[in-house]
Amino acid sequence: MSEHYYLSQVPDPESTTAILTGQDAIHLARVMRAVPGDEVFLFDGTGADYRCIIQNIQKDRVETTILEKRCPEQGPSLDLTMAVALPKGERQKWLIEKLTELGVARYIPLRTARGDVKYDENVRDRLRRQAIEASKQCGRLRIMEIMPEMSRREIMAPHLGLVQEDTVTILAHPKSDGEFGQWSFPRFAERFRVEGVPKRIVLAVGPVGGLTQEEVQEAVDDHWPTLDLGDMVYRVETAAIVAASLFLHLQ
Amino acid sequence: MSEHYYLSQVPDPESTTAILTGQDAIHLARVMRAVPGDEVFLFDGTGADYRCIIQNIQKDRVETTILEKRCPEQGPSLDLTMAVALPKGERQKWLIEKLTELGVARYIPLRTARGDVKYDENVRDRLRRQAIEASKQCGRLRIMEIMPEMSRREIMAPHLGLVQEDTVTILAHPKSDGEFGQWSFPRFAERFRVEGVPKRIVLAVGPVGGLTQEEVQEAVDDHWPTLDLGDMVYRVETAAIVAASLFLHLQ
Repeated sequence: MSEHYYLSQVPDPESTTAILTGQDAIHLARVMRAVPGDEVFLFDGTGADYRCIIQNIQKDRVETTILEKRCPEQGPSLDLTMAVALPKGERQKWLIEKLTELGVARYIPLRTARGDVKYDENVRDRLRRQAIEASKQCGRLRIMEIMPEMSRREIMAPHLGLVQEDTVTILAHPKSDGEFGQWSFPRFAERFRVEGVPKRIVLAVGPVGGLTQEEVQEAVDDHWPTLDLGDMVYRVETAAIVAASLFLHLQ
Repeated sequence: MSEHYYLSQVPDPESTTAILTGQDAIHLARVMRAVPGDEVFLFDGTGADYRCIIQNIQKDRVETTILEKRCPEQGPSLDLTMAVALPKGERQKWLIEKLTELGVARYIPLRTARGDVKYDENVRDRLRRQAIEASKQCGRLRIMEIMPEMSRREIMAPHLGLVQEDTVTILAHPKSDGEFGQWSFPRFAERFRVEGVPKRIVLAVGPVGGLTQEEVQEAVDDHWPTLDLGDMVYRVETAAIVAASLFLHLQ
């Protein structure tokens, strides 16, 4: 598919003008050597894309007229929230890139007892930029939401609307770390085959060093079934990508 | 689990001596400040590990006596060969690390019409070292085999024994690129639920830019069913990790 440029501001629905600014404008002007009259595709991260014609190019600002706005159906029908303890360094970028490609709806850095990776507004901004870049690469039009850090209990807060009546909540936890009635993935698949595939899943993955026994017990008490991903030792981002893959390919 | 050090030479089964050399020996002596009498765990990449006691330490050579050799059951029961067109740069390392963690048995760089990433003995050695490092991290005792580059047809050569009578061969290919009777993953899962899960799968993933129509048609003619991973655009390494995750968690 043709390259999409990112509009940091959603165009006014009353207007036919879309203005590209910042790095994407510079890239279009300098690297791609676009000129007025060229057709470009823009997206605003909310699921829409815009076929536009360039009117005017300045150094870091490209003015266009919208020829067509489209909101194509795209991505998995499952609304999947991945609440994953933030890994370190390069692994953060990799996690965001892969969850974006997979079509995960939103990412929550999971706050846990043993998690010790800093998450502040700077980190959040960086992850957001990485989600935008990954979206451009794979042509995803609705950008994965990057949420504030939350504990598992905080995710359940009714006012957030993340865990609703029809939401299936799951905690990934290896069986080798004590018996909490863990289910293997095929058991979930069998359940969904009988009951129907849920529309919304919230899936939590703990930090390097694992969840504490108390954290797992609390989740079990809250009726979060635990998912056992087998006897290989997965890194945090691997467990997240594997678990997301499994649930996103149920149908 | 405790750290395992890698024996580049498999110990003689008649002998009780195991000798660690190179970087792992240096690391053990300098960084870990091991001394004679310390207990260490070594592995030789073939599935065995050795509980050893250190006898003698030199700069890049640690002599040990084997106290116990173990060959624990480990990893998935599925023998999965991933034949994946080599991605570029950093993505090679990620691919090898993640396939190692997942428990993939062997990796074959897939030769394709549109693939253009160099693979020679230097690259192969680098991938091997990455597979060893990843194995240490996740405690995998049988190292993922790094094979020579092969075309899909070459993989089928009977003398290699990769595709046997009971082997299921699959080619990942997006439905959006023409209709080749692609199956979604749940259709494979349903088939295996009825017929039983195969013991051996060979799964091929094409390069950036995709397989040619001729390559896909040839695979279909060879009775390789095609797997459609949905309408998200996956990078090569993402498609490989997703597909491997799905088939390794069938049971």
